[in-house]
Amino acid sequence: MNHSTLLKSHYPWTSTPLIAAAPMRLIATTALAVSVSQSGGLGFLGIGTDSSVLAGLLSSCTSSLSQAPPIPNVPQGVLPIGVGFIVWGASLSEAVEAVKASPLKPAAIWLFAARQLSELEEWTTALRQASAGKSKIWIQVGTVAMATEVAAACAPDVLVIQGSDAGGHGLAQSSSIISLLPECADELSRRGFGDIPLIAAGGIMDARGVAAALVLGASGATLGTRFLASPEAEIRDGYRAAVIKAGDGGVSTARTSVYDVLRGTTGWPGEYNARGVLNQSYWDHGAGMDAVENKKLYERALEMGDEGWGEMGRLATYAGTGVGLAKEIMPAGEIVRGILNDVRRIQVVL
Amino acid sequence: MNHSTLLKSHYPWTSTPLIAAAPMRLIATTALAVSVSQSGGLGFLGIGTDSSVLAGLLSSCTSSLSQAPPIPNVPQGVLPIGVGFIVWGASLSEAVEAVKASPLKPAAIWLFAARQLSELEEWTTALRQASAGKSKIWIQVGTVAMATEVAAACAPDVLVIQGSDAGGHGLAQSSSIISLLPECADELSRRGFGDIPLIAAGGIMDARGVAAALVLGASGATLGTRFLASPEAEIRDGYRAAVIKAGDGGVSTARTSVYDVLRGTTGWPGEYNARGVLNQSYWDHGAGMDAVENKKLYERALEMGDEGWGEMGRLATYAGTGVGLAKEIMPAGEIVRGILNDVRRIQVVL
Repeated sequence: MNHSTLLKSHYPWTSTPLIAAAPMRLIATTALAVSVSQSGGLGFLGIGTDSSVLAGLLSSCTSSLSQAPPIPNVPQGVLPIGVGFIVWGASLSEAVEAVKASPLKPAAIWLFAARQLSELEEWTTALRQASAGKSKIWIQVGTVAMATEVAAACAPDVLVIQGSDAGGHGLAQSSSIISLLPECADELSRRGFGDIPLIAAGGIMDARGVAAALVLGASGATLGTRFLASPEAEIRDGYRAAVIKAGDGGVSTARTSVYDVLRGTTGWPGEYNARGVLNQSYWDHGAGMDAVENKKLYERALEMGDEGWGEMGRLATYAGTGVGLAKEIMPAGEIVRGILNDVRRIQVVL
Repeated sequence: MNHSTLLKSHYPWTSTPLIAAAPMRLIATTALAVSVSQSGGLGFLGIGTDSSVLAGLLSSCTSSLSQAPPIPNVPQGVLPIGVGFIVWGASLSEAVEAVKASPLKPAAIWLFAARQLSELEEWTTALRQASAGKSKIWIQVGTVAMATEVAAACAPDVLVIQGSDAGGHGLAQSSSIISLLPECADELSRRGFGDIPLIAAGGIMDARGVAAALVLGASGATLGTRFLASPEAEIRDGYRAAVIKAGDGGVSTARTSVYDVLRGTTGWPGEYNARGVLNQSYWDHGAGMDAVENKKLYERALEMGDEGWGEMGRLATYAGTGVGLAKEIMPAGEIVRGILNDVRRIQVVL
């Protein structure tokens, strides 16, 4: 079975190529996940480091879907929505409880940023069991070495290959998917793991990025930043406006730990940081302002609400290098349908 | 005229899509440039910061080509080979002299890393005149802003869009071509510069990378790192071996200024650094070793010859994140023909 056929058999309501909306912590909640899955994609809930929100979000999605025309071809007992965990910070036992208790099991469970490989093995085994195999396991990696190690240890249903352009958290040191995807594909094949579908992440904003991912060796793509520019993303309008305004993401964003420090998001393993739009917090940090003072100003900006974002603002605007390709706010479903439509018209023109 | 037709009309001996070998300073000399152009691509000579080598290299290429079966369809008075300058360090008057004096004008002149936009205007005008329009002007940029400014000021024949994965020198802060190429394409079109063909650079190693560049909006691609693994690259075998050995380039390479310091290559504008394979020099620098001591060890490694390279070595191994996709040493012409052959078989599989 080729990769696309395999993905289609696991998520039969989705169109080909598979378009997923990334499980952005605090941002990808019911509205975003439901719209994406209703439009031929696979929406994810960003459970992040807090497994206690899982049960509520699963039931909110179930209820939201039950009030709309049914999504065709959803397998019995499956919620056509995925959930994403930041493994180093989330509780496995709480996750297992919620999955067991839910009448509908999430179609996919996306694991990211474990402290060690053994955690991923443990999570994979426990969640496959809790969902009676109904939840497919996606594991996100950012290097060729991680891809092969995870493939060997966990036999994931999908490997998400994240490149350096991605917004929010990822490896501080990595390459973009331009070289990472083909090298992962080659190395996985060479070691007998060529049957695992690869989903590309990082810098993909539209059908052109999706098509590039496909020719590089992926069978689908996941987008985060593009969905920030949808009304369904659970962010403040100030954040959304900052995304629309930013352009030339190679220079207007950077990978940094500054925003984690300011937000008090401690606990990330040392090899991770996050890409966000540069603003006053970042520049002051670079100019040597101490963290206590910077945090004080950050908190004052928080009180300003929407005005706290933007180039002159101080609040974290996590976004990828593709931020300049988000030109207008558009419903998430329209984003998915637009990409699926456009990608069919793209050919390698010779 | 579409971009591919335009490129073909300028370089009628080349195949579509246009495959160029980057003008790597000290590395891309006669052998590499000639083999690439003899194989349906466009070879470049790395003139770098030393315009005084131009006359000799042009005549060496002319002589090398005259001893082989003629390349078909080369326009009269044109040498089917390009030349690349690092503008901040090279002498324009010497370049103009050499181009004027050469009976055959280089098919393309690639300008990189000017201190300011006005230099690029000056170089473009002077070299167009010196070559009586026979040399097409390529200008390399790394941000959307640079792309539109250069397009407006210089009307280049080609814009080379370099992403963060590229080996050797480039912008310290940039995105990969995954988002940079489509944003440049959109912004150039919006401003009326949509007629300028884009050539992608950075992380492209084989037909998959070339196909990705095409769907992202480029009309051709330039490869550097892949050609390091050819016998024609003018590098020591130790360097070549280090390229073959390195893999997982997102973590085995990094952008840094360390190697410039050790080699005494001063003068790069502050926004540039270079990507190379990590080795002992880099780690010692990171561990706080002072530059004088590190340079002393570097120079001792230089005396070791081929043994001075490699992971435990100290010599600069400039290479891009795609270094892991260079698995074997292969003649440059075979690399070009292989890519041209493979890219025809790639389709966006839906």
